[in-house]
Amino acid sequence: MAEECGTGTSGRFNRRAVKVGEAQRLVLAAADGLRCGSELVPLRESGGRRLAQTLCASSDWPPFARAGLDGYAVRAADTAQASPEMPATLRVVDSVAAGGIALAAVEAGTAARIMTGAAVPEGADAVVMLEQTAEATLPGGAAAVLIKRAARPGQNIAPRGEEFRLGAALAAPGTVVRPGHVALLGTFGYAEVPVQKRPRVAVFATGSELLPVAAPLAPGRIRDSNSAMVAAMIEQSGAEPMLCGALPDDPDAVAAALERVWDDADLIVTTGGVSVGDYDVMSDIIRRVKSGSWTGAGHDEGRQACRVLFDRVAMRPGSPTSAAMLGDKLLLSLSGNPGACFVGFELLVRPALQRMQGVRDALPRAVTARLAAAVDKPSPHDRYVRTRLIYEADGRIAADPLAFSKSSMMASIAESDGLAVIPSGSLGAKAGELVEVLLIP
Amino acid sequence: MAEECGTGTSGRFNRRAVKVGEAQRLVLAAADGLRCGSELVPLRESGGRRLAQTLCASSDWPPFARAGLDGYAVRAADTAQASPEMPATLRVVDSVAAGGIALAAVEAGTAARIMTGAAVPEGADAVVMLEQTAEATLPGGAAAVLIKRAARPGQNIAPRGEEFRLGAALAAPGTVVRPGHVALLGTFGYAEVPVQKRPRVAVFATGSELLPVAAPLAPGRIRDSNSAMVAAMIEQSGAEPMLCGALPDDPDAVAAALERVWDDADLIVTTGGVSVGDYDVMSDIIRRVKSGSWTGAGHDEGRQACRVLFDRVAMRPGSPTSAAMLGDKLLLSLSGNPGACFVGFELLVRPALQRMQGVRDALPRAVTARLAAAVDKPSPHDRYVRTRLIYEADGRIAADPLAFSKSSMMASIAESDGLAVIPSGSLGAKAGELVEVLLIP
Repeated sequence: MAEECGTGTSGRFNRRAVKVGEAQRLVLAAADGLRCGSELVPLRESGGRRLAQTLCASSDWPPFARAGLDGYAVRAADTAQASPEMPATLRVVDSVAAGGIALAAVEAGTAARIMTGAAVPEGADAVVMLEQTAEATLPGGAAAVLIKRAARPGQNIAPRGEEFRLGAALAAPGTVVRPGHVALLGTFGYAEVPVQKRPRVAVFATGSELLPVAAPLAPGRIRDSNSAMVAAMIEQSGAEPMLCGALPDDPDAVAAALERVWDDADLIVTTGGVSVGDYDVMSDIIRRVKSGSWTGAGHDEGRQACRVLFDRVAMRPGSPTSAAMLGDKLLLSLSGNPGACFVGFELLVRPALQRMQGVRDALPRAVTARLAAAVDKPSPHDRYVRTRLIYEADGRIAADPLAFSKSSMMASIAESDGLAVIPSGSLGAKAGELVEVLLIP
Repeated sequence: MAEECGTGTSGRFNRRAVKVGEAQRLVLAAADGLRCGSELVPLRESGGRRLAQTLCASSDWPPFARAGLDGYAVRAADTAQASPEMPATLRVVDSVAAGGIALAAVEAGTAARIMTGAAVPEGADAVVMLEQTAEATLPGGAAAVLIKRAARPGQNIAPRGEEFRLGAALAAPGTVVRPGHVALLGTFGYAEVPVQKRPRVAVFATGSELLPVAAPLAPGRIRDSNSAMVAAMIEQSGAEPMLCGALPDDPDAVAAALERVWDDADLIVTTGGVSVGDYDVMSDIIRRVKSGSWTGAGHDEGRQACRVLFDRVAMRPGSPTSAAMLGDKLLLSLSGNPGACFVGFELLVRPALQRMQGVRDALPRAVTARLAAAVDKPSPHDRYVRTRLIYEADGRIAADPLAFSKSSMMASIAESDGLAVIPSGSLGAKAGELVEVLLIP
């Protein structure tokens, strides 16, 4: 393999790094072509899914003028002179429970007992709180109510359509369904909800050192923790992981393994094997695609459908991260190093999965925070440092770089809720500097 | 029902409000007695669950001295005088793939080709990056490598146990399993993970105005949106909702309905019917428990097991929120108003579900933010205003009170990611004031 060392013709070191933003643009453009379509799910299974259509109000809301509390529906004019000493006395003509319908209109000099949420009877234009009334009996025995102060027209009534008008757009396609959306969907009768289908993602590990998680350790071997981590991140992204185990070291066997998941997977994610080592099988695959000699899954006669999006990204960790279109499937190859794998997922895979589910703003949300401690490692590329956000008592936020931030260090993955972006350069960033932090779930 | 109006003896208005903190303390103390036990789930289903035991390192990590990159394992001393002009020439005695085992030790004057993640052979104390080496051939034809600069002892090697020592505690019981935890679990061989059982939560709505979500609207009726919203929040909290539909108006029938879910539910949540109206059946239930006349589900001979925790909370919205122990079941009765129902869930139900899953810090996370606009409603009680957090370019955060913040208004539920706490008083809070904001998922 000596001919592949140095700056030989094989291209092993001949990988031009694209900027992170450019890599994201390429991946999102590819993901745009990978929409998975929509499906109907029962309302109670819609939480966390992405809407496939604009959620619209199917009626005015409220659908009728509603009483905001328990009390009496009155005509405000009848109470204009009321005071504790000289209360207005109104004959009670009806009692309207929530869900019931008034039998009589409220005419001058009358009132109707009304419950929270009930439709305000015709004629009434205010509801007086029960606690501000007293019951009474008219001469002759008819029930009445004493109102001790003037009611304001409209008080304690939510007019029809106050919140929403029929047809109003309440949420855009791609919106993740939160509990508040479930309430809106229920209100407007969506017993079934059109949601984006969950993308199916094949997950492969590479590396002959890898043991299954259930295996005992053996000399020189470690367990494959990336597959399960990536699967958990895929689930978090609203997609369905398909755990495919470890890929063999041989590119032809890799092609065969991809072939086997081809019809079932919308996206293929691999971990490891993208570096410059002798056994970096994913690098071999990417090189084959680049040189036009790939004849595995997705390969077509014209060979136009297979193309490398990038085989190096200007970032730390995870610079060997690569991406290719194999026919109509997107292959995202992450570093095997757990920290780099994690960062590569947040920057590239999660955005792809979001976009495949119709999300417009598919990139991680960026906020500004003060760096709580220096990150004084120089780097030729932008560095993504796992941090924990600190909300301070004065309303500021700080990002604390986690102690174990070497890319091989796993404890910081579990603890981080942000990735601080330290721009490339020889200095790193000082404590107190404002930096961009990408929020991670 | 005239005898129940005013400040009569029935207790309808005779409800002493407890402070929110006190209500939370009472609910969490009750939840402490409702632990659901643990179960083993496959690693790939553990994401989002709560750990039932301390997660411990089952070996040192790394389990052996690992090469951090592709290159050559050397004895640093052999390279001490190396320079680009006078490189050290070392005979290559072995090639160690990740997962492989060195056949030879690295002795003075020798080196071993090594791949990222492979075990560093005995004798070597540094790894030199492949890109900083060149291959060579010794007289006689043996393979060699040229090292052009001095290696530092330990460079590019992660020593055994650098990250974790056997037995180290990595996460406490109650920790929610995030992707980073999944990586740790995989690394340490947890093919099955001991997690807290998901509490089963029976969800009932009350209100004769309620239609099922699938039903067409009818005069005076609205659809039951709370049940589905609460179910989505229960799922979000790691628990299992059991949607039980609407409770009848009659307390005896309520008792029978509770009886039917008794054995299957760990917690019972109701929405609506807690106010002072004539048909507020949950208020009736709470009054019966308070007065000792409750004989429904959970009632025992001694009657000691049934007790009201509170039947009014000093908060807006949601002041009628009530809680009782019915035997060994906790009943949490939320307001029917969607906004109040939502706030009641965040302040009381979610914390209860967290605690039932072993979470110590079960209350919502509180941060400090600047109020982006005034909340100038006076209130006799602390007010919980739905807000959207704004991360500003100077590293501060602001909380924007959502326009539709009346308790009946639903759009703001979907849009909010925080509840700003506006202390009770006659003034509300001004724009720019620092307020406490409870983060909501």
